Amino acid sequence: MSVTPKYSTKQRAQDRARILQILLTNKAVATGILGRLPQPDAHTPEQDISEIATLVARLPAADLADVLEALPTEERHALWRLIKDDQRGKILIEASETVWDDLIEGMSDKALLNIIRPLDIDDQIYLAQYLPRDLMGRLLATMPQEQRARVRQVLRYEKHSVGAIMDFEVITVRADVTLAVVQRFLRLRGKVPQNTDKVFVTTRDKTLLGELGLTTILLHAPQTLVMSVMDDNPTCFAPEDNDEVAARTFERDDLVSAAVIDSSGKLIGRLTIDEIVDVVYEETDNDLRRMGGLSAEEDVFAPVSKAVKARWAWLAINLCTAFIASRVIGLFEHTISQLVALASLMPIVAGIGGNTGNQTITMIVRALALQHIQPGNFSFLVLRELGVALFNGIIWGGVMGCVTWLLYDDLALGGVMTLAMVLNLLVASLMGVLIPMIMMRLGKDPAVGSSVLITAITDTGGFFIFLGLATIFLL
Amino acid sequence: MSVTPKYSTKQRAQDRARILQILLTNKAVATGILGRLPQPDAHTPEQDISEIATLVARLPAADLADVLEALPTEERHALWRLIKDDQRGKILIEASETVWDDLIEGMSDKALLNIIRPLDIDDQIYLAQYLPRDLMGRLLATMPQEQRARVRQVLRYEKHSVGAIMDFEVITVRADVTLAVVQRFLRLRGKVPQNTDKVFVTTRDKTLLGELGLTTILLHAPQTLVMSVMDDNPTCFAPEDNDEVAARTFERDDLVSAAVIDSSGKLIGRLTIDEIVDVVYEETDNDLRRMGGLSAEEDVFAPVSKAVKARWAWLAINLCTAFIASRVIGLFEHTISQLVALASLMPIVAGIGGNTGNQTITMIVRALALQHIQPGNFSFLVLRELGVALFNGIIWGGVMGCVTWLLYDDLALGGVMTLAMVLNLLVASLMGVLIPMIMMRLGKDPAVGSSVLITAITDTGGFFIFLGLATIFLL
Repeated sequence: MSVTPKYSTKQRAQDRARILQILLTNKAVATGILGRLPQPDAHTPEQDISEIATLVARLPAADLADVLEALPTEERHALWRLIKDDQRGKILIEASETVWDDLIEGMSDKALLNIIRPLDIDDQIYLAQYLPRDLMGRLLATMPQEQRARVRQVLRYEKHSVGAIMDFEVITVRADVTLAVVQRFLRLRGKVPQNTDKVFVTTRDKTLLGELGLTTILLHAPQTLVMSVMDDNPTCFAPEDNDEVAARTFERDDLVSAAVIDSSGKLIGRLTIDEIVDVVYEETDNDLRRMGGLSAEEDVFAPVSKAVKARWAWLAINLCTAFIASRVIGLFEHTISQLVALASLMPIVAGIGGNTGNQTITMIVRALALQHIQPGNFSFLVLRELGVALFNGIIWGGVMGCVTWLLYDDLALGGVMTLAMVLNLLVASLMGVLIPMIMMRLGKDPAVGSSVLITAITDTGGFFIFLGLATIFLL
Repeated sequence: MSVTPKYSTKQRAQDRARILQILLTNKAVATGILGRLPQPDAHTPEQDISEIATLVARLPAADLADVLEALPTEERHALWRLIKDDQRGKILIEASETVWDDLIEGMSDKALLNIIRPLDIDDQIYLAQYLPRDLMGRLLATMPQEQRARVRQVLRYEKHSVGAIMDFEVITVRADVTLAVVQRFLRLRGKVPQNTDKVFVTTRDKTLLGELGLTTILLHAPQTLVMSVMDDNPTCFAPEDNDEVAARTFERDDLVSAAVIDSSGKLIGRLTIDEIVDVVYEETDNDLRRMGGLSAEEDVFAPVSKAVKARWAWLAINLCTAFIASRVIGLFEHTISQLVALASLMPIVAGIGGNTGNQTITMIVRALALQHIQPGNFSFLVLRELGVALFNGIIWGGVMGCVTWLLYDDLALGGVMTLAMVLNLLVASLMGVLIPMIMMRLGKDPAVGSSVLITAITDTGGFFIFLGLATIFLL
């Protein structure tokens, strides 16, 4: 006899893949589910639809959320149609915000309230933050007074703060009772919130005194007093703390949950590792997307129209910067007409600068996110990057200078090539450090569009430096 | 009375910043610690050194690891010198691999063994994987037989597999005992490994039967039998499983720990959330670095020589691709000499393609990492991206075509501009989808250098398309 997982991770992965396969290989399945086929005839893929329905009934909410995220809009709607109301709320919680619009769209307010109301208060609050204003009002109206106050409080916290992701459901015990009393209290309570690895020790007015790990309860004699074994120096957060900084602290201290206290030391909620893992995924994903000029909310499976909308701004910015670079070259059209080889060579200077600039900026953006950059080591970084650029510029610029000399049999042209590469690499690395640092100082996200910006600078700079030097030395 | 954290997160952050500040503003401090000052004179910053020593003695290992990561090599050595042997082992565990070389360098084998030996077996195994071969042999020689077998086993698992990051220390109980017996057993044991949220129920030969959460133990009556309340359908992993896939499952199922079983169902270890959080940070960070052509191991504070070494390969690749693009332009030097405006306009076509290609590839790389792309939805993605490119090409290509027409008073040139932009955007988006998919098929990491590659293709392609069309239609 051994453990026979009734529903293994592997089986779940297969079931997820199977739903995708059915929906994506036969367009008629989605159309059939949505009832848009002209008439139910022999071609209605009834068998496929009922297979999907079976899989949907079996898969946990988190898996269904994943499948929904991996579908185009039409198929997403179709699958959503097959999901029962009591699953839908949990799925909304698990799914990323990018797909909410698609799922909520077309549902009546009443239906939406019906799927939200059975959720935990913490999940309701989480969803409420993203609901349309009027719908939120109606959701609030269905809540008891105390819950309503909590929702209002959460809505006051900014996005990306600890307050916006904390849970309100906490278990508290008193310091002057024994562990036996605590255990009896827990047993009476019957269940604990997910990711409970500790209970909080507070006074009657909710002032936090310490934390009591479940393992501590289990490992000590029942007659032990809480105050004698509690951790009275726990890691706490304030609701205003930044969520990414909190995530780092969770990682540093290997936390599963932590108390959130207000400025007077009163316990107002707790932060749990599952929210933190989401923050970590989001943080790094967003950096990646933002640097490339993708909006953080872009849904991979959005239809063409939405994808166009999500990206047009960056494209327009890019077009403007490319146009500026083009005009810089335009200034030197006379030079180019004299020596057309310059036109062939100038993209090398620009390209190598773009590469170095992007390497530098990627490193700095991540180091900033990791809080590794302090005012103290900033000048070291600038000098280090300039040193690397100078070295690479002389070596690789020298190589390209020689190649140019041999190719065009023009020593002066080779010299201009080398000099231009050295200078553009210096510009690229200096800007690669400065741009994210300045954005940070201005209170902007250093990742946003940094890649687009650095490429613009190294292109324009590269053309200007190379063609400028050529005009001075070669004409 | 309220909780008075003796050493708050904020205070720790201040202490970390203070060490950095002292070491980075006065070069003499590091030199002084390393004993390299010509002679201890009045200028030796004794006071600063003793302040750092005080802070070092107070800060936990995880914080010191962070500080070490944020220092240049010389200062890093100096700080390491001030850290006591009994802290050093823990710091190595917490620090990222990028700084190990710096820290281990200069330590004798004996000193290194001295700091590793007091660690937990799981930590020793973790470090052993990265030690030089001969040193590992000596470390193994100091271990009891059973531990040595374990280390050998772990070393067989590949990097980025569950086996390489699992813990061996697990608590097991039998299915036919009561919860009271379990609790007595735990109390006798006296302590549990970090991140223990459950114990594992096994047979005498270690076959996994189920899991018993600590909360289950606390919430049920002591006379309850383990088998009647255990979870007999737990999420398990195999040691060969990929660690990033395991991280996704942890996120999906909100796990804190999970069993690792071999193919015969025997429990061989467990995976914990702290390792998973590290995997998540690494996974996304690495994608970001790899796309830009940075090696995953690059240390932000490495000296110039190391940074040059870490980046030269990508720079060389970039130089080659830029050279190819330059030669493509070279083919059309005759065309350019006839119409020098082409030289000014061609970077617009190339640049806009690069931007779109990078947006697409970033999205696909992340969607692949999230396992959102299946054979079924692949063709949807290609068509979607081509649709977006066609739309953007016609709109923005049209705009640029008009601008070109007005600027150079040449309708045909404007037409070539529009057509070239449409075509290059189509190439960019097609390649943006295909490159990562093909790399994935070939078993390569789709992120590695994808940004460099797509830029090379859109540059070369853009120049070729634009200048080729110009040669056909304008000469």
